[in-house]
Amino acid sequence: MNYVVGVDIGGTNLVVGAMPADGSREIGVHTLPTRADLGADAVVQRICEMIETTIATVLRETGATRGQFAGVGVGCPGPLDREKGVVIVTPNLGWTDFPLRDRITAEVGMPATLDNDANCATLGEWWLGAAKGGRHVVGFTLGTGIGGGLILDGRLFHGASDVAGEIGHTTIEANGRRCGCGNYGCLEAYASGPAIAMRAREALANGEHSLLHDLSGGDLAKLTAALVYKASRQGDAIAAEVVKETARFLGIGVANILNVYNPDVVVLAGGVAQAGDSLFVPLRAEVRRRAFKPAVDACRIVPGSLDGSAGMVGAVAAFLEEHPVA
Amino acid sequence: MNYVVGVDIGGTNLVVGAMPADGSREIGVHTLPTRADLGADAVVQRICEMIETTIATVLRETGATRGQFAGVGVGCPGPLDREKGVVIVTPNLGWTDFPLRDRITAEVGMPATLDNDANCATLGEWWLGAAKGGRHVVGFTLGTGIGGGLILDGRLFHGASDVAGEIGHTTIEANGRRCGCGNYGCLEAYASGPAIAMRAREALANGEHSLLHDLSGGDLAKLTAALVYKASRQGDAIAAEVVKETARFLGIGVANILNVYNPDVVVLAGGVAQAGDSLFVPLRAEVRRRAFKPAVDACRIVPGSLDGSAGMVGAVAAFLEEHPVA
Repeated sequence: MNYVVGVDIGGTNLVVGAMPADGSREIGVHTLPTRADLGADAVVQRICEMIETTIATVLRETGATRGQFAGVGVGCPGPLDREKGVVIVTPNLGWTDFPLRDRITAEVGMPATLDNDANCATLGEWWLGAAKGGRHVVGFTLGTGIGGGLILDGRLFHGASDVAGEIGHTTIEANGRRCGCGNYGCLEAYASGPAIAMRAREALANGEHSLLHDLSGGDLAKLTAALVYKASRQGDAIAAEVVKETARFLGIGVANILNVYNPDVVVLAGGVAQAGDSLFVPLRAEVRRRAFKPAVDACRIVPGSLDGSAGMVGAVAAFLEEHPVA
Repeated sequence: MNYVVGVDIGGTNLVVGAMPADGSREIGVHTLPTRADLGADAVVQRICEMIETTIATVLRETGATRGQFAGVGVGCPGPLDREKGVVIVTPNLGWTDFPLRDRITAEVGMPATLDNDANCATLGEWWLGAAKGGRHVVGFTLGTGIGGGLILDGRLFHGASDVAGEIGHTTIEANGRRCGCGNYGCLEAYASGPAIAMRAREALANGEHSLLHDLSGGDLAKLTAALVYKASRQGDAIAAEVVKETARFLGIGVANILNVYNPDVVVLAGGVAQAGDSLFVPLRAEVRRRAFKPAVDACRIVPGSLDGSAGMVGAVAAFLEEHPVA
């Protein structure tokens, strides 16, 4: 059995682990802060140390040899150039035209592949998670930003220049909120984690008391989407309204996808997956209101099931798509 | 050489013609009013008479025999079930669960295929028109409604239940104008022909004089998108503003497609293609503002070039995709 290492690079954390090529288990998965502030070289150094730690764990636990490692799949925020293995620009990491793939290959002495982090998360959920069995799958990754990935006819779809899947930056409100990307009315400006927290702060602006005050320790600057979901679960009316609105915005984004791509699975991964029915029930209702019935009937809309490892698992799967091994 | 008949069924007109399998020419193309008011049987009857007229023209002009006709490709508004050849529902024609494909096969004694009209128009523009050479192509068909088609990796993409491509019914304004489909804020509610005419009427509501009054013969109910484009070309300020707004709405729709699907060609077919630079220049500018640069750089945005025959040509191409012939 061959093994592949998966690397998921986020603005906050790095996740590294390994899997046998049949995807039967995750081994040596561990997480460290990215510390992008230390610079690209330091991040690459850290990633490569984590890869070595994971390899050592696999050797110890399975008796495999280093020769059984086929390579390293890397998922990273984009835009990027897959063929060249170059990160074109990542605002969160501060990298520009950075030859990430070849840097890792040079350090660890193995072939590597580079793909978008949201593509990897979608691929992971399709390979081993909640989107298993789908033929046309669209993944939404909800966190600091909103990313996405498309699987069409059972293969990751990258488009003409590796941009495909940037669902977070589709306009749902022509004259809407300013988005971090510089545009107005992007889905991300309404339903990303920080956008949810901001809408909650706005909802509290009239001074009404809410559990959100307590949960944030009295400092609303510390409000997060997770706390909004928590307050909503505990019956807080203002938080519940914010969650309902979030469901509506996400429902619009999902309905747009259903009408254009007509997938059989939409999987929503990231923190939002823990929001449960309070989010998914009104979200599905909004989709039913806006999408064509045959598209709604053909599609299940589900939370991701791989939790924090979807990106790492998908990075392994992306490597295997380019380098099929036994 | 084998021949295929193409049928394009619209709410207003039927277009029927034939082409040799190599697509080298159009023969016997003619148009008749659909007259959906006479009922489905009468429309099928009319279509089959038109098919026979076209076949007779081909026999006369080329010396081909009836045995050289491989079949009939039919494009029709949807939603529809391609595999069964059934039109599920078409509000404009008043059909429900209508087995159109088999009705035509029974009448003319040839195999037939059924596909969505906008898919056919996109396929036509890709085969022989403005989208030629593209690998990932998205077509917008702009008329009474807004339809769309996706070509992915060189093949028409239908999605899980033949709904893919309904670009006109993606939301660009969460709390926007009511659309004919029952929802709010669909692209179609802003940029279809009737929506353009309606926005022009609204722009005239403050009583200012405009060429639009003259062009519509003093009856603003007779205003059409074509007249708005005409008045704009002749320098009318109000019409020019309506065209600019139309470009903005279409630009949002196109930018959303670029960020999610990252095509190398977007082709806009229908009356809008005649609007020329007054529409396409601000439309491309809006797309540049809203879509990711690598997606913009990879994509040309062009008017359709097949004029009224894109749907017929594409219906022939759709037949040939299912029944490859020499």
